Amino acid sequence: VNVISFTTDYGLADGFVAACHGVAVTIAPDVRLIDVTHQVPRGDIRRGALVLAQAVPYLPPGAVHVAVVDPGVGTSRRGVAVAAPGGVLVGPDNGLLMPAAAALGGASSAVVLTESAYFRRPVSATFHGRDVFAPVAAHACRGVPLAEFGPTVAPAELVALPPPVLRRGPRWVEAEVVAVDTFGNVQLAATSEVLAAAEIAEGARVDVGGHVAVRAPTFGSVAAGELVLYVDSAGFAALAVNGGSAAQRLGAAVGDVARLTVRP
Amino acid sequence: VNVISFTTDYGLADGFVAACHGVAVTIAPDVRLIDVTHQVPRGDIRRGALVLAQAVPYLPPGAVHVAVVDPGVGTSRRGVAVAAPGGVLVGPDNGLLMPAAAALGGASSAVVLTESAYFRRPVSATFHGRDVFAPVAAHACRGVPLAEFGPTVAPAELVALPPPVLRRGPRWVEAEVVAVDTFGNVQLAATSEVLAAAEIAEGARVDVGGHVAVRAPTFGSVAAGELVLYVDSAGFAALAVNGGSAAQRLGAAVGDVARLTVRP
Amino acid sequence: VNVISFTTDYGLADGFVAACHGVAVTIAPDVRLIDVTHQVPRGDIRRGALVLAQAVPYLPPGAVHVAVVDPGVGTSRRGVAVAAPGGVLVGPDNGLLMPAAAALGGASSAVVLTESAYFRRPVSATFHGRDVFAPVAAHACRGVPLAEFGPTVAPAELVALPPPVLRRGPRWVEAEVVAVDTFGNVQLAATSEVLAAAEIAEGARVDVGGHVAVRAPTFGSVAAGELVLYVDSAGFAALAVNGGSAAQRLGAAVGDVARLTVRP
Repeated sequence: VNVISFTTDYGLADGFVAACHGVAVTIAPDVRLIDVTHQVPRGDIRRGALVLAQAVPYLPPGAVHVAVVDPGVGTSRRGVAVAAPGGVLVGPDNGLLMPAAAALGGASSAVVLTESAYFRRPVSATFHGRDVFAPVAAHACRGVPLAEFGPTVAPAELVALPPPVLRRGPRWVEAEVVAVDTFGNVQLAATSEVLAAAEIAEGARVDVGGHVAVRAPTFGSVAAGELVLYVDSAGFAALAVNGGSAAQRLGAAVGDVARLTVRP
Repeated sequence: VNVISFTTDYGLADGFVAACHGVAVTIAPDVRLIDVTHQVPRGDIRRGALVLAQAVPYLPPGAVHVAVVDPGVGTSRRGVAVAAPGGVLVGPDNGLLMPAAAALGGASSAVVLTESAYFRRPVSATFHGRDVFAPVAAHACRGVPLAEFGPTVAPAELVALPPPVLRRGPRWVEAEVVAVDTFGNVQLAATSEVLAAAEIAEGARVDVGGHVAVRAPTFGSVAAGELVLYVDSAGFAALAVNGGSAAQRLGAAVGDVARLTVRP
Repeated sequence: VNVISFTTDYGLADGFVAACHGVAVTIAPDVRLIDVTHQVPRGDIRRGALVLAQAVPYLPPGAVHVAVVDPGVGTSRRGVAVAAPGGVLVGPDNGLLMPAAAALGGASSAVVLTESAYFRRPVSATFHGRDVFAPVAAHACRGVPLAEFGPTVAPAELVALPPPVLRRGPRWVEAEVVAVDTFGNVQLAATSEVLAAAEIAEGARVDVGGHVAVRAPTFGSVAAGELVLYVDSAGFAALAVNGGSAAQRLGAAVGDVARLTVRP
C-alpha cells in the first residue's frame, strides 16, 4: 500500500506534524501522505475517534492510518496496530482507533508495538507519533507484516470507548451529540435507519428542546435562518440552521443528549 | 494533467478536506494535490473567488482547480466545469469560479455536471465537494473530456459576481476593499495601471480617510508604523503599515470603498 | 534531492502558500513538499528559527528547506542559500536559517541570491517566498549547484540571532523560555546535559517562580494537574502540567527567563 493518513491533536503551529511526515517519508520515500486533521481538541479521544472513523471510508482502500490523541504517552498504555479489511490503524490503545476499525469492516487482528527495531531511536517519552507510530506505519507500507511489530492481541481485548447514548421509541429519538462541525452543524448518534424506525419522515416537524426543526434533505431545503433535521454526509441525523449555527441556536455541545419528538 | 487544487470553506478540523483528497486519489492515484486554502469564511463566495483567482496564475498550467464555497448545495444550483486556456475549474455555478477563469485566460467552454457515472454514489445532499467535484476533477485529470460530464453551457450564461467598485479621476481613485490578508494589508480593486492613469506616482503623499500614505515599492520602504500605498504581489494597489495592520489603522473591511486623493 | 520543506508566517487563509507550492512544482514536478508550519507569528524570526531547527533533524537528509519570516522583504536585506551536511536552507539573511544550519551539522558554505535567471520574474517587492526562495529551492532540487545562484559569502558573515539566556550553577539553572507549544508546554534553552551538569536529577523537586515541579520522564509520570520538569522530544528541558497548561500555570511567555532551583 502507498498511503498513510494522519489524525492528531498536534495543531499546525509547532512542526510536530512535519517531524512525523519527515520520519515516514525517510523510511518510505514514495508514500502519499494525507492529513485527516491535526486540530482534534487536545486529548479529546472521542472526537479524534469520530473524525477518523468518518474519514477513513473515503481514503484509499488499504491505507495505513496513524492516529495520535494520546494523553497517556510515556506511561504504560500500549501502542497497537489494528488490521481491518479496509486498511490498517496505528496508534495508542486508548479507544481512538476502534470506531475507524469498525468503519473499515471490523478489526480482524491486532498487535502490540514492542519491536523497537521498527521505531525511531532513541524513543522520546512524549512524542510517539514521531518515534513509534509514523515509523511503524511507514514500515507497514513497505510491506513489513504486522506480526513483525510485536505480539498478537485479540481485538476484543483492546481498549474501547463507551458507545454514545441512543434510545428511540414511536416518533421520538434520544441521541447523543457526537460532533459539532465548523459550520455549527450538530451531528447526532442516530443514523438514518434509526430515524426511519422511529417514523421521523421527510417533512415531519420535530421538537428539539423547544425549537422546531423540519426534516428535509439539506439545509438549503428550508428558509434562511430556519432549523432543519437532515441526514448528513456521513449518514447520521444532524441539525443545521440554513446560513447559521444550529449549535448556537440550540445551545448544543458534544456529549449533550438531544431529544427529537415529532409534533402532532 | 496531473495537479488538482482545492479551495473551500471547510476548515481543517473536520476531515472534510481529507475525504475530498481521498476520493480524488482513489480515482487518480498519481495526481498531485495542492491546497489553496480551506479557510474561506463560511459561504463567502466573493472571498473564495478572489483567493482562487490570485492563486491560479502560480499553479502549474493545465491544473484542475476544485473550489467549493457553496451555500446552495443540495438545492437547484448547478455544478459546472469551466475550461480556460490555463486550466480547468470545477465547482458550483454561483460565481465562485469566474474570476479564476478570467485569470487563466478567460472561460472558453463550460459544461453542467449531470453525468452521475462520474460522481461518487450515493451523492449526499450536503457534500458535493466529496461526491461530485473531487471525483469529476480526478476523472478530468485522467483524461475524461469535459463534454463527458454533461451538457455544454455558454460561459456567458454562468452566474457571475458583480464587479467591485472602481472609479478614478485626476489624482484620485475610489476602489473597493477586496481583501484583508493575514498581515492586515488592505488590497484594493485598483491595479497598478489604474494608479498610473490617476497619476498617483511613487513618492506621492495620498490621503486615505484622513490618514496619509506614501506611495512606495514596499512596506519596508517606509519607517516602522507608517502607512504605505504599494502595488502588492498580485498586482493590485494595497495599503500596509510597516510592522503593523493597515486594516486596523484605517478601520477598513472588505466591501468598504477607499478613496485615495493625492495631497497637493 | 527530492524534498522541499516550507516554514513561513504566511498563515493558511490567503493562498500565499499555494503560490509557493505551485511555483516550486512547476519547476520541479516530481519534488515532495513538506510544510513545517505557516503559523509562525508574523515577523517572529526567533520563533521561526526555532521551529525550523527542531524540525529539520526529522526531515529527509539532503532536503532543501525554504523559510520565510521576512519583515525586511523588499529592502536591502539579502536572500541567501546555506549548505550544511544535512541539507540546504534558503531564505532571508536575517538569522532565521542559522539555528537550522547548526542542527544540520553546521553551515559549510553560503551564497547570496543574485542570479535572477533562477527567480520568477518580475520579482515582486513583497513576496520573495514565491518569486525568489521557492524557485531557487526548486532549481537546487533539480541539481543546480548553489554557486550558480550568486556570489559566495562566508557563513560567519551571515546575520545571526543572539543566543538565548542560559546560566547554571550547583543545583540551579536560569534559562530563557524559547517556546510555548500548542499544549502550553514551556520549552527552556537548557538541554538535558545542562540539567545533568547542574545536578537536577530524576525525582528532584524544583522551585520555579514559587511553583514546585518534579523532574520526571514525561507529563504522564505525575498526577493530573501537577507540574513536571522533563526532557522534551527535541532534547530540551521543558515544563508541563499533566492535562493542563504550564504556560498558564507559570504565567510564562517566550523570552522570559525561568530560574530552576532544586529544593533541599
